[in-house]
Amino acid sequence: MPLVTIKVLEGRTTEQKRGMVKDVTEAIVKNIGCPDSAVQIELVDLKPENIAHGGKLFSDGR
Amino acid sequence: MPLVTIKVLEGRTTEQKRGMVKDVTEAIVKNIGCPDSAVQIELVDLKPENIAHGGKLFSDGR
Amino acid sequence: MPLVTIKVLEGRTTEQKRGMVKDVTEAIVKNIGCPDSAVQIELVDLKPENIAHGGKLFSDGR
Amino acid sequence: MPLVTIKVLEGRTTEQKRGMVKDVTEAIVKNIGCPDSAVQIELVDLKPENIAHGGKLFSDGR
Amino acid sequence: MPLVTIKVLEGRTTEQKRGMVKDVTEAIVKNIGCPDSAVQIELVDLKPENIAHGGKLFSDGR
Amino acid sequence: MPLVTIKVLEGRTTEQKRGMVKDVTEAIVKNIGCPDSAVQIELVDLKPENIAHGGKLFSDGR
Repeated sequence: MPLVTIKVLEGRTTEQKRGMVKDVTEAIVKNIGCPDSAVQIELVDLKPENIAHGGKLFSDGR
Repeated sequence: MPLVTIKVLEGRTTEQKRGMVKDVTEAIVKNIGCPDSAVQIELVDLKPENIAHGGKLFSDGR
Repeated sequence: MPLVTIKVLEGRTTEQKRGMVKDVTEAIVKNIGCPDSAVQIELVDLKPENIAHGGKLFSDGR
Repeated sequence: MPLVTIKVLEGRTTEQKRGMVKDVTEAIVKNIGCPDSAVQIELVDLKPENIAHGGKLFSDGR
Repeated sequence: MPLVTIKVLEGRTTEQKRGMVKDVTEAIVKNIGCPDSAVQIELVDLKPENIAHGGKLFSDGR
Repeated sequence: MPLVTIKVLEGRTTEQKRGMVKDVTEAIVKNIGCPDSAVQIELVDLKPENIAHGGKLFSDGR
């Protein structure tokens, strides 16, 4: 704990993921004061046909 | 917001997903009174070997 | 299954929740073709100090 | 209900999943007193590049 | 990891929760072979007015 | 999108939450390149009697 879930559109590179988990962990440690080893992050890759805004699938355009 | 997650057995067609996010969005707007652009939906496709009822995997039959 | 989660800002009345789960269930049944008894919905009431957009808490104004 | 989600590192065999949902269901029934048919479990397979501890991706070593 | 979430109707005693997390942890360790210290469980207490089956709130009867 | 959930032990001050959502949003924008207005964060306050590690409730000590 803290337990973090970050859902992003699929297609992020490993480099982007590596940087994101490092920086998000630091951001939480800075504000909560927990050890960084306590921060767990799960990334979820979302497919465009599985997301909708305003009743419209992302894969159908915006 | 509202943020909606709908978990269904994998195998739904894009047409089914398209209709479902449209109709679910309308159902929420009708009752909550938010603009439809505020409704976000995430669909999750579940594999039969990753679901269980009564202690038994869905993929092992019911 | 389907399993649905709907996260909304706290303060919705029971009447709004009652209508929303009824209409969302119908919207899913119409598109997926499952029996309505298979649709489970969980509502989550979100506090304004626990939501943020653009790096700003909802409770701090928009 | 109860609704259970178990997130594990990908690569578990069907046999492991089969045993786990059976035993977890029994553990819940024993303590809650619900019928086993009421227990639903969703398994989520996590990829090593989508998990991080201490700001470091699992796929980058520990 | 494993990360477990168990959603139950509110009103379970601390004794029930204590027994459930102990037994569920053992059930996972037995099948996955991880150390028990790796198993994290989050319990979520659900209010009857926030759950619905078949389009009907649990608090409205079944 | 991105959609972020951060689960922390209850008792964080509004000031801590305010700083955390600001800094986590910046960390994601820096790595993903999305506009900060696209980042949504939900905070979840966890009670000590609803978390367990190693089969033991957090409220029972470690």
